[in-house]
Amino acid sequence: MRKISDSTIRRLSLYLRFLEQATTQGRTTISSGELAKLGGTTSAQVRKDLSFFGSFGKRGLGYTVPELASRIRDILGLQRGYRVVLVGAGRMGGALVQYQGFKQRGFHIAAIYDQDARKIGSRWNGLVVRDVRHLETDLKKERSDIAIVATPADSAQQVVDRLVRCGVKAILNFAPVPLAVPPDVRVKHVNMALELETLSYALANR
Amino acid sequence: MRKISDSTIRRLSLYLRFLEQATTQGRTTISSGELAKLGGTTSAQVRKDLSFFGSFGKRGLGYTVPELASRIRDILGLQRGYRVVLVGAGRMGGALVQYQGFKQRGFHIAAIYDQDARKIGSRWNGLVVRDVRHLETDLKKERSDIAIVATPADSAQQVVDRLVRCGVKAILNFAPVPLAVPPDVRVKHVNMALELETLSYALANR
Repeated sequence: MRKISDSTIRRLSLYLRFLEQATTQGRTTISSGELAKLGGTTSAQVRKDLSFFGSFGKRGLGYTVPELASRIRDILGLQRGYRVVLVGAGRMGGALVQYQGFKQRGFHIAAIYDQDARKIGSRWNGLVVRDVRHLETDLKKERSDIAIVATPADSAQQVVDRLVRCGVKAILNFAPVPLAVPPDVRVKHVNMALELETLSYALANR
Repeated sequence: MRKISDSTIRRLSLYLRFLEQATTQGRTTISSGELAKLGGTTSAQVRKDLSFFGSFGKRGLGYTVPELASRIRDILGLQRGYRVVLVGAGRMGGALVQYQGFKQRGFHIAAIYDQDARKIGSRWNGLVVRDVRHLETDLKKERSDIAIVATPADSAQQVVDRLVRCGVKAILNFAPVPLAVPPDVRVKHVNMALELETLSYALANR
């Protein structure tokens, strides 16, 4: 398969949300124009995004809602569930554990780790915060494909090295540092300030 | 100025971080190759990103660190500070208020609002949560260019309408709904699950 850009993948995620809304509204078809409008893009872009993955929809009739939703779930790897471990029981970790959107998409936070004795043993959203020393033994018992790192900047790389050694292949990083990982591990950085910077850019360049 | 893509802006933000790290390490020059390596991209991309905004660096010598940092701060509109209001004192709002990265970049969260009587009056990171009813009168007294919306999905649009009427021009949205705004208002959506979906896509398509 050819290399698909991150922005195409992000738009597919958005289209899936609109398709799910359409489903709850009992709708059976949707046009590329409508998906485009909801996603703030053009019909041509919608058709192009989908064309990477085969042929969908009928000219003049649009897309069949449940069929397209199911195809996008396939493409995004969302037909299965994911066991996710979270390292870092700080403020951000706390918000993430409660975040409803993860479970809805099949991402189950299965364990939380911290190194702070005051946090270890406390209960968060039904999970008990575990000592990060148990990371290796826990992951040996139950593998996780995805980890969320929400530690302070100075411990993130060390935590990531340990996760990678335990076979974690995808990391969502909230720590404000670049991370080094082997080529077969994928890292996504979430940087709140960076999002605000695209806004300040827009404000400065009106 | 021609329209610059969001991905270019995001990379500029990253380059700025690397330039700041280089500054603290006492370095005076940096090559496009090095910026590329840190940002996980190519030298050609770095040069292209910067070329939109003029001519930087000298062939064979690279970029002067403080000069390039200052130019990128200009481009991103970061030479000034921003007064930011936050609506929604839930878990995510709480994490955002404590987020150090905002203040470091000149984004000052100046007020927090909620409609929940149990939250109003409580103190968060030195700020007292205010009744969202005061939004209009507060913003009339002190304008804000940027707002962060971290309310539940079903109240987000109504809050955004009120912010827009008060002159807010840029919104960082954490509520999991698309938002309608006038053409002169910019919205950035932060969707944690969407970030995980780009990871599950990578896992599914290895």
